[in-house]
Amino acid sequence: MTEKLILITNDDSVHAKGIRALIETAKLLGRVVVVAPDKPQSGMGHAITINHPLRINKIDLFPDVEAYSCSGTPVDCVKLAIYEVLKRKPDLLLSGINHGENTSTNVLYSGTMSAAIEGAMEGIPSIGFSLADYSSDADFSHCLPFITKIINQTLNKGLALNTCLNVNFPNLSLDKIKGVRICNQAHAFWADRFDKRLDQFGNPYFWLTGDFDEVIPKENTDLDAMKNGYISVVPTHFDLTNYQSISILEDWKL
Amino acid sequence: MTEKLILITNDDSVHAKGIRALIETAKLLGRVVVVAPDKPQSGMGHAITINHPLRINKIDLFPDVEAYSCSGTPVDCVKLAIYEVLKRKPDLLLSGINHGENTSTNVLYSGTMSAAIEGAMEGIPSIGFSLADYSSDADFSHCLPFITKIINQTLNKGLALNTCLNVNFPNLSLDKIKGVRICNQAHAFWADRFDKRLDQFGNPYFWLTGDFDEVIPKENTDLDAMKNGYISVVPTHFDLTNYQSISILEDWKL
Repeated sequence: MTEKLILITNDDSVHAKGIRALIETAKLLGRVVVVAPDKPQSGMGHAITINHPLRINKIDLFPDVEAYSCSGTPVDCVKLAIYEVLKRKPDLLLSGINHGENTSTNVLYSGTMSAAIEGAMEGIPSIGFSLADYSSDADFSHCLPFITKIINQTLNKGLALNTCLNVNFPNLSLDKIKGVRICNQAHAFWADRFDKRLDQFGNPYFWLTGDFDEVIPKENTDLDAMKNGYISVVPTHFDLTNYQSISILEDWKL
Repeated sequence: MTEKLILITNDDSVHAKGIRALIETAKLLGRVVVVAPDKPQSGMGHAITINHPLRINKIDLFPDVEAYSCSGTPVDCVKLAIYEVLKRKPDLLLSGINHGENTSTNVLYSGTMSAAIEGAMEGIPSIGFSLADYSSDADFSHCLPFITKIINQTLNKGLALNTCLNVNFPNLSLDKIKGVRICNQAHAFWADRFDKRLDQFGNPYFWLTGDFDEVIPKENTDLDAMKNGYISVVPTHFDLTNYQSISILEDWKL
């Protein structure tokens, strides 16, 4: 069997502890190439860089692993990796492990998951991994055996067309994790607030803040799984059409 | 009947011709407040600004319209408008008119559509408008009667929960437009390329470029409607779950 080529990226930058944990795990399963942001890119969603040029630099951060830092977003990293670094599509794309969970509508804001979705758009089996711990020193060790199993199953069985996986780990030790649940995306929302401050000239500036509140009850969500001690896996695609609304809108006679 | 409060944003900035056309049309239908980026934010997708503070400035660009420019992304504009400028949810959110079409998977990269999706997440009836003409001097006049009709129907009939509209106009004169089609999102993709150049020190940098190629044939897509001279309207939501894949993944026994 030929060795699998595994592309790894993230949104917390090449310097994050989470990508290092993912690299160490994936190295045992194939040839890993890393193309990841040179600085934190959390909250960048599916942004691409079109008004500035992009830079990539070869880096020597990970033992025995070819790696590059990129000045752009996670989606830029995926595009540059495929078209300039690898000059081919990898057999697998992994994104993460994110410092912080990406359940529910966070999938839209998340650079980690947008990289995986971009992979799916390229027809590459792609998985985003996130841990419900924002700290830079988060402990990822309990995620690793599950990541190995999910990667192996993905390589063996493949994923549906246009579909990637959104995998979230609760911040619990291995003996407290109850298992894995295949879920759907919760309809939870940020109750946004801004922290308004005054600068040295007395002019206001704003920091985005807020709490995450579930608003619309739904069965079998990723948020519920996580709250109950399960790892959530959501098959995630990029067709945003609400098909049920099409016939309603046809009656509008526009 | 109380006057409707209409929030307008875009991704081409407050200085774009497209937002001016949308403001002039919407002014006749309610009280308009504008909160839009102070510089072009195309391709920003659903990005939010979390590593820098945000600024908003009152501007006097549009006759008789309260307007603010914002240093952030289109999604930042929506959040700031609701929580700091209006201090309430508007009755309607309009985004655009974008210089350039946002059919197919462009909905993921588009700041215009991400602002509308953010509106839907806030429970606000929201519509993104785009014209298939990238030029800064594009002619939006043929879009305006259709925009008036779509706004009126949306205010009268409402939209399904969690759903906004993605409206795209072909670049044709009014007499050449064949009508409006309610569509689904095409599965078309960018064949990405990078334009590689060398800087003054001989180091490489990259500009993202490429062509848009439909890959996966589908019935009744926005891309087909536009190609055939129709205005496309896609009901767009933000549940990215591929429900059909859930039972397949359950068989993986993770």
